[in-house]
Amino acid sequence: MDKAGLEGFIVHSERNIYYLTGFMSSGGAYLLVSEDSSPILWVSKLDWEKAKEEVRICDLRVIERRTRIQKTLSDELHDLGMRTTGFDEISVAEYFELGKNWGGDLKPEAQLIWMLRRVKDKEETERMRRAARIADIGVQVAIETIAPGTREYMVAAEAEYAMRTRQSEGTAFETIVASGSRSAFPHGSPTARKIQSGDLVIVDIGATFKHYRSDITRTIVVGKPSETQKRIYDAVTDAQETALRRYRDRERCAMIDGVARSLIRKRGYGKQFVHGLGHGIGLDIHEPPTVSLGSKDFLETGNIVSDEPGIYLPGVGGVRIEDMILVAGSKGERITLAPRSLEA
Amino acid sequence: MDKAGLEGFIVHSERNIYYLTGFMSSGGAYLLVSEDSSPILWVSKLDWEKAKEEVRICDLRVIERRTRIQKTLSDELHDLGMRTTGFDEISVAEYFELGKNWGGDLKPEAQLIWMLRRVKDKEETERMRRAARIADIGVQVAIETIAPGTREYMVAAEAEYAMRTRQSEGTAFETIVASGSRSAFPHGSPTARKIQSGDLVIVDIGATFKHYRSDITRTIVVGKPSETQKRIYDAVTDAQETALRRYRDRERCAMIDGVARSLIRKRGYGKQFVHGLGHGIGLDIHEPPTVSLGSKDFLETGNIVSDEPGIYLPGVGGVRIEDMILVAGSKGERITLAPRSLEA
Repeated sequence: MDKAGLEGFIVHSERNIYYLTGFMSSGGAYLLVSEDSSPILWVSKLDWEKAKEEVRICDLRVIERRTRIQKTLSDELHDLGMRTTGFDEISVAEYFELGKNWGGDLKPEAQLIWMLRRVKDKEETERMRRAARIADIGVQVAIETIAPGTREYMVAAEAEYAMRTRQSEGTAFETIVASGSRSAFPHGSPTARKIQSGDLVIVDIGATFKHYRSDITRTIVVGKPSETQKRIYDAVTDAQETALRRYRDRERCAMIDGVARSLIRKRGYGKQFVHGLGHGIGLDIHEPPTVSLGSKDFLETGNIVSDEPGIYLPGVGGVRIEDMILVAGSKGERITLAPRSLEA
Repeated sequence: MDKAGLEGFIVHSERNIYYLTGFMSSGGAYLLVSEDSSPILWVSKLDWEKAKEEVRICDLRVIERRTRIQKTLSDELHDLGMRTTGFDEISVAEYFELGKNWGGDLKPEAQLIWMLRRVKDKEETERMRRAARIADIGVQVAIETIAPGTREYMVAAEAEYAMRTRQSEGTAFETIVASGSRSAFPHGSPTARKIQSGDLVIVDIGATFKHYRSDITRTIVVGKPSETQKRIYDAVTDAQETALRRYRDRERCAMIDGVARSLIRKRGYGKQFVHGLGHGIGLDIHEPPTVSLGSKDFLETGNIVSDEPGIYLPGVGGVRIEDMILVAGSKGERITLAPRSLEA
């Protein structure tokens, strides 16, 4: 805050508030952090009893009326004598209302919190390992469920049940099960389509454990793979492995993406790798750092980032393999461990 | 748009884009609507193949580089000669970048789309009835699962599996299963707590069908209810029924909340009803109109709105009963149909 020239910071994202206070609101909470006084956390009446039990380090207040919270916040900024305050995520309408009532300088500085969140500490890493273990089981149950005649949504149902009964707090994102030519859509939601022999099937799934997420993708073929299927599967696997060796402290993310992309280009599928190689994972399913050609990020120890090349042939099908990688000094440790193979 | 003095409108919310075009992006899409030319939809490379299959009414374009989309948008606004453009949801940083590059007047006007979305047409209503049917089953399976010794998360697992296998596209929101004194938290997520005889258990669950959501809450007691449990259950039930008669065209939402609240106050629990009576439901789980004391909304035919009074006694437990109500002329039709009773 000091370096950014800020006297205070307004936090409105539920996950940022959780990160800073350990309290997950059901929405609408505000946290005001300042140099000179203890943090103030406003929560809805709905969350009041739970917050009283869980929140320790803040001056806790209740939001009496939703329509007045902007006024309350700007009065507080005024009373604290602040002139420059950062914020993470507020709407444009809120931005103007706060500015009007208070008169100080309000700056979008979400990246200040991301600088903290992108490096996972020991406890966060443990939670994410646990979430990864649960996703490993989810994706393996999905693969066991896949058979000719099984509908895509039944594969999702079995995998999600397996994760929920192992204490996943719901899925980390909308489960993807995309079979046959639908596997050429990188983000194909499960439909009632019946899986057929010869299909490629992409399963992309994640668990949540104590609010931390996991993310894993496996692709299999139902029955015997064709030559094309084998070729694109091998290209994706090789790209994933080659890139993995670059998941290390101080490595430039754009370079890592480039390594995977150039290998896939050499195999003739450059144009069919239609997304970035990876993204940070944590309380959010997509967060910094970003591993893509356009990224300006560098990796550092404590990042947990996906490594997920893919090749998608319109009308034919696609392959994506994704693991979560923990950056630890000069190497990356794979923390999703489900077996990878084209044949079930 | 005309009435609001807008020549164009930038749509960035995934659900607003779906509502207007029938295409659900996996994020990052922009739709530009203008008076004089056909709508332009920019989608990520990831969504390109799917969009080509599904999008009919737009000039479809691909986002080549994420970092440049603000520039592309402002160039387009400039080329179309627009001076005043509304938008639904863009970040404060995007707001300033667009304004800087383009120079026109950019206005937050999300309510223009909400005016359309809050009134459901026939097809939307059918999808929501279907989502409500699935949630009816989910909540009934949850209640069948509840027994002394069962963990809260296992209740969620069984209910979610029942919904998924009936083609729910994942849950409409994070399932709530809160037992014993935890039921005094209106938004208690499922934990590993073992349910005990004598507990109140709140189950709040929803399904999604073709992107439209449902929302239902039931509360039961495990075994024989105590006098207090019966008293608060009856107060909530009576408040819900009494309020239901006011769910009708042109009724003032604040008045409906007041009717339920005053009944609960008379029973001595006014301070323990810590949230509004209801919220609109649709592509979002919480959307306009809002049924609360501070609301300025009026109901109209075609709204689908929850009716969900609750009483929460800290340290003891809580009761909430929630149904979805379709406003149809002079009456409200309950579209969630699972039986309501304190004893399983």
